[in-house]
Amino acid sequence: MNPESISNDPQLDASGKLIHLLGLKGLPKTELEHILDVANDLLDSKGNLKKSKALDDMSVANLFFEPSTRTRNTFEIAAKRTSANTINVDLANSATKKNETLMDTMQTLKAMQIDMFVIRHKESGLPHRIASNIDGVSIINAGDGTNAHPTQALLDMLTIRQHKGSFDDLSVAIIGDIRHSRVAHSDIQALSTLGVKDIRLVAPENLQFNGEAPEGVRCFDNLHEGINGVDVMMTLRLQKERMMSADIPNEQVYFETFGLTDKKLKLAKPDAIVMHPGPVNRGIELDSGVADGPQSVILQQVTNGIAVRMAVMVVLAGKA
Amino acid sequence: MNPESISNDPQLDASGKLIHLLGLKGLPKTELEHILDVANDLLDSKGNLKKSKALDDMSVANLFFEPSTRTRNTFEIAAKRTSANTINVDLANSATKKNETLMDTMQTLKAMQIDMFVIRHKESGLPHRIASNIDGVSIINAGDGTNAHPTQALLDMLTIRQHKGSFDDLSVAIIGDIRHSRVAHSDIQALSTLGVKDIRLVAPENLQFNGEAPEGVRCFDNLHEGINGVDVMMTLRLQKERMMSADIPNEQVYFETFGLTDKKLKLAKPDAIVMHPGPVNRGIELDSGVADGPQSVILQQVTNGIAVRMAVMVVLAGKA
Amino acid sequence: MNPESISNDPQLDASGKLIHLLGLKGLPKTELEHILDVANDLLDSKGNLKKSKALDDMSVANLFFEPSTRTRNTFEIAAKRTSANTINVDLANSATKKNETLMDTMQTLKAMQIDMFVIRHKESGLPHRIASNIDGVSIINAGDGTNAHPTQALLDMLTIRQHKGSFDDLSVAIIGDIRHSRVAHSDIQALSTLGVKDIRLVAPENLQFNGEAPEGVRCFDNLHEGINGVDVMMTLRLQKERMMSADIPNEQVYFETFGLTDKKLKLAKPDAIVMHPGPVNRGIELDSGVADGPQSVILQQVTNGIAVRMAVMVVLAGKA
Repeated sequence: MNPESISNDPQLDASGKLIHLLGLKGLPKTELEHILDVANDLLDSKGNLKKSKALDDMSVANLFFEPSTRTRNTFEIAAKRTSANTINVDLANSATKKNETLMDTMQTLKAMQIDMFVIRHKESGLPHRIASNIDGVSIINAGDGTNAHPTQALLDMLTIRQHKGSFDDLSVAIIGDIRHSRVAHSDIQALSTLGVKDIRLVAPENLQFNGEAPEGVRCFDNLHEGINGVDVMMTLRLQKERMMSADIPNEQVYFETFGLTDKKLKLAKPDAIVMHPGPVNRGIELDSGVADGPQSVILQQVTNGIAVRMAVMVVLAGKA
Repeated sequence: MNPESISNDPQLDASGKLIHLLGLKGLPKTELEHILDVANDLLDSKGNLKKSKALDDMSVANLFFEPSTRTRNTFEIAAKRTSANTINVDLANSATKKNETLMDTMQTLKAMQIDMFVIRHKESGLPHRIASNIDGVSIINAGDGTNAHPTQALLDMLTIRQHKGSFDDLSVAIIGDIRHSRVAHSDIQALSTLGVKDIRLVAPENLQFNGEAPEGVRCFDNLHEGINGVDVMMTLRLQKERMMSADIPNEQVYFETFGLTDKKLKLAKPDAIVMHPGPVNRGIELDSGVADGPQSVILQQVTNGIAVRMAVMVVLAGKA
Repeated sequence: MNPESISNDPQLDASGKLIHLLGLKGLPKTELEHILDVANDLLDSKGNLKKSKALDDMSVANLFFEPSTRTRNTFEIAAKRTSANTINVDLANSATKKNETLMDTMQTLKAMQIDMFVIRHKESGLPHRIASNIDGVSIINAGDGTNAHPTQALLDMLTIRQHKGSFDDLSVAIIGDIRHSRVAHSDIQALSTLGVKDIRLVAPENLQFNGEAPEGVRCFDNLHEGINGVDVMMTLRLQKERMMSADIPNEQVYFETFGLTDKKLKLAKPDAIVMHPGPVNRGIELDSGVADGPQSVILQQVTNGIAVRMAVMVVLAGKA
């Protein structure tokens, strides 16, 4: 079984070329590494972003059916930094109100010569369904339900590679609401593909991975054991908006049992890094000392998020 | 009498040069053909849009007082494809709330060196009134009340010309809510100017053209007679938001009497094309078989919509 | 004491270089003149705006916590005219909803490699607080509470200089709601720094400058005396949304006592200019004859507003 629950079938064409980015399941290690390499080339020696002309004849549309200013902004910035035209489709006032079907909207935008669509939707699998029904454009999944969030996982991998060099001998703990987190699902997939042999899922029982754990993945309901000796701690955001009310933990209890503090950090390796997809709930997933401390790479993740999204667009456009 | 009900007087300067696009009434055939020619040059041999640098020193503002994501997007994309700066003026939060008069808003935007304004408003004639009161900028009417929608008619004409070559010997049926449709009014005007001799308006009595039919235009309340032997079927969208409640037809009855199906299509010429301004109400104006069938040119209309709007901007800027 | 009430300490670096624009207090005359000179170079001989490539490798974000379409548009247009990437951060739907702290939001946007932030907020001093807490980016104050609005004052100074040449011998009257007006506070500061010796504040008692008048500044509660013989009349907008209800004057009474008419204009010098930050309440601060008359420079202020904002960005970027 597999952490991303939905097949990403239409994302490779007959010759194995990436034409959509729907999820990381089914993508070979070489393809992930290629995207990371392209992203890396978009950063200068100080880790700052370069500008690219790669997509100066292309148009990218943001279709966010779930509100997310932060992720939408990163895609918009990434598209502009590759010199693409960008358009934010205002879905609140759009033709969907006029009963136009989603596929008609997509075909219409394609006819307006939009080349690439960044889609976020609360329904798992919706980007896959769109990709199966429309030719000649690229779909980038910016988060679908609880299924996948591939660009988040790719930026996480880029950040880990920058700090740790290789994935082979790493121990990585993912901490928090694994069950409802598309980020976790894509991260598990990416770590597994890239060869991490010690993947640990650390969560209270009702937020733990739902189903049989993937091969080589161990589940922990105790933080101390879960992060003991690890190289990487990937914390997840408590996203109450995606939980059933019975699943929502008491914040104080959660922080005491699963929240990272300077003291608990000592259980991991001395050079272990702390990650978070943002925005951080200070005092819940992390305390401020950890969030702003020397082991935190949270802001570097943000910059890498632009680089990775630029890289995905450039690769899908066949320009790298 | 004339299908567009309002004079477009200020749109030509003393030398006959087009300085605004308010409507098609009063525009000579050569001017329409010039815009279509410029639009055609913006398409490559496969019908895909080229990019242009024509307006790289200009700024275009979208002023949509009526919500319309689709049309606004097409103007924004068109402006960006001509390399203009674009700005969407947020009218909900704008100075109009602060009791600034509309003309003060326009003069202020002009002083910010906006060169061209795309205006949609529910009041018929408002773009004309603005054009009469402000110098040195160009106004493009993107739909005013029930009066006119000239760029929609121009894209329709471009699509017909691509398929039929010339207008002289065509039979064209416009089907649906003629009475409330600014699209219909501008289409009738355009077809008439371009020399179509057989124009048929096909509608239930309460949605039929209001007043004396223009010369050479025939009204039908029966679809079978109306589309018998025609070359072009232009269907209109049922726009309930612009109708009085008493005028709104029962959708099932409308589809049975005026909706296009594969079977009814056989009444027209075998190579007749089916048009719709979008978004289509499937099962009301058309069934899905027709919308997606080989005679449908609906998506080509969308692409032509960008080309025509680019062409209008380029012509108004004096760059073609 | 000082008209802008808050220290602008972090805006100059150790070498005296401008790195933020928080207010005009503490800025030397040479710095103000430098910004005005750069702005002037961005205008051609007819007063029209040039385009600049100065910021083509930079990104500017608009963070408007108070709605203001007009000012936001001017900053967006200014940024685009310097070839910067621009992004409007949608604060209604943003991470602030997710309890992200403002400083986390700023650090995240910085990590997305936004170079410059344009901030408007109803809390006096907020841009200063942000500038004190974040390195490596520039903050431009687009209006904070009742404290300061430095770019408005700079565009006012540019306009005065264009008409009057030098500031030394001018008499300038500021008329209206001085008390609640950040524009007035910054204008008084700018006029004072640039050497105007006769600054008059003309207002009803409950809207008059609150506290001890700055040195060389005289208060008037009578318009006739206040504008007698002046070179410049700077009228202020009655902003009811920032007043306590007890302070709001009867509009008719206000117009009769403090509103400018052609007749009252004769009290000033024959070549006196009339200014207003817009949008004008016709018949309250000015009548239409004055707003549209030969002494009005209101629309020129709008154009200068773009030039000055471009200049501020170029100077902060170290490109002039």
